[in-house]
Amino acid sequence: MRYCSDCGSLIKQKIPPNDNRLRYVCTSCNKIYYQNPKPIVGCLPEWQDRLLLCRRAIEPRLGLWTLPAGFMEEHETVQAGAARETWEEAGAKVEIKQLYTMFNLPYISQIYLLFRAQLLDPNVAPGTESLEVNFFQEQDIPWMDIAFPVIRETLWLYFRDKKQGAFKLHTGDIVRIPGALRRYRINL
Amino acid sequence: MRYCSDCGSLIKQKIPPNDNRLRYVCTSCNKIYYQNPKPIVGCLPEWQDRLLLCRRAIEPRLGLWTLPAGFMEEHETVQAGAARETWEEAGAKVEIKQLYTMFNLPYISQIYLLFRAQLLDPNVAPGTESLEVNFFQEQDIPWMDIAFPVIRETLWLYFRDKKQGAFKLHTGDIVRIPGALRRYRINL
Repeated sequence: MRYCSDCGSLIKQKIPPNDNRLRYVCTSCNKIYYQNPKPIVGCLPEWQDRLLLCRRAIEPRLGLWTLPAGFMEEHETVQAGAARETWEEAGAKVEIKQLYTMFNLPYISQIYLLFRAQLLDPNVAPGTESLEVNFFQEQDIPWMDIAFPVIRETLWLYFRDKKQGAFKLHTGDIVRIPGALRRYRINL
Repeated sequence: MRYCSDCGSLIKQKIPPNDNRLRYVCTSCNKIYYQNPKPIVGCLPEWQDRLLLCRRAIEPRLGLWTLPAGFMEEHETVQAGAARETWEEAGAKVEIKQLYTMFNLPYISQIYLLFRAQLLDPNVAPGTESLEVNFFQEQDIPWMDIAFPVIRETLWLYFRDKKQGAFKLHTGDIVRIPGALRRYRINL
């Protein structure tokens, strides 16, 4: 971040008055550019005893499986965003139900909000960001080919709760282990 | 948004390839500026049968009462953000407990995530953004002087759940009523 998007002047990092951390501030018009974590919204689409997963057609983790999820857009609700992502990535219409997992990913400033959802029609089709979409029972889940730890953990909790007959909200943190490639600690 | 913060060139709105909505895009380096809703995190600090509220020293709604809450910062968890805001606005140390309300405010692209919390020490003091802080039992809550509908609704749900002896997560939307100043519909 080098130039002010309002006036085009140079930006410097400084601590504004009454603040306690470094911000990007315009040296000319003094506009402050706050940075905030981004919500990622998605769902676990249920059809009978199966879940709908998508195989990623884009980086990162191209070719691996995930739940439909993506960045929330301006002026939508988390539930509307979760349903929109499911439509865009899997051509699937869902009814969003309760919030199921909320995971912090502080190392990349993301919050995942994943909902249970009822698929309304089993006719689904991969969107431009998916290579294929498919339904999985627990024993068929491609555990070694799940794209992200937050998705693997959510699936794992889901099938455990399902066996126990009660779904409850789970919250936790995904913490990157320093110096290790793609290794994470999960705190529930 | 007029200038690219990376290269200083002009920004135009256009729909990028494989996208379906207008984005701010640099006319020179093609950087895309995505806009995302912002999480606001806070808590209901409990001390015996009372809740801690803050009276706002800043706009908007200066002079009115609210729960400690604010914009989440980069690289923190929602729970850490809720505890930080409570410390900054009320000088109060809390242990964050379960997520209690999640409200969408799509007209301003905000998501409120408010937690129940246990106050660890009743010695509290207003921070720079608060005129005063105080403890309230239900009958003393200044219902007509609560700063925001999302806070009033959360407090109302809290005392109703408390009476019924069971707190559960509530999710909903705060929708601005068009043409009316400060009038909102609440969908739970």
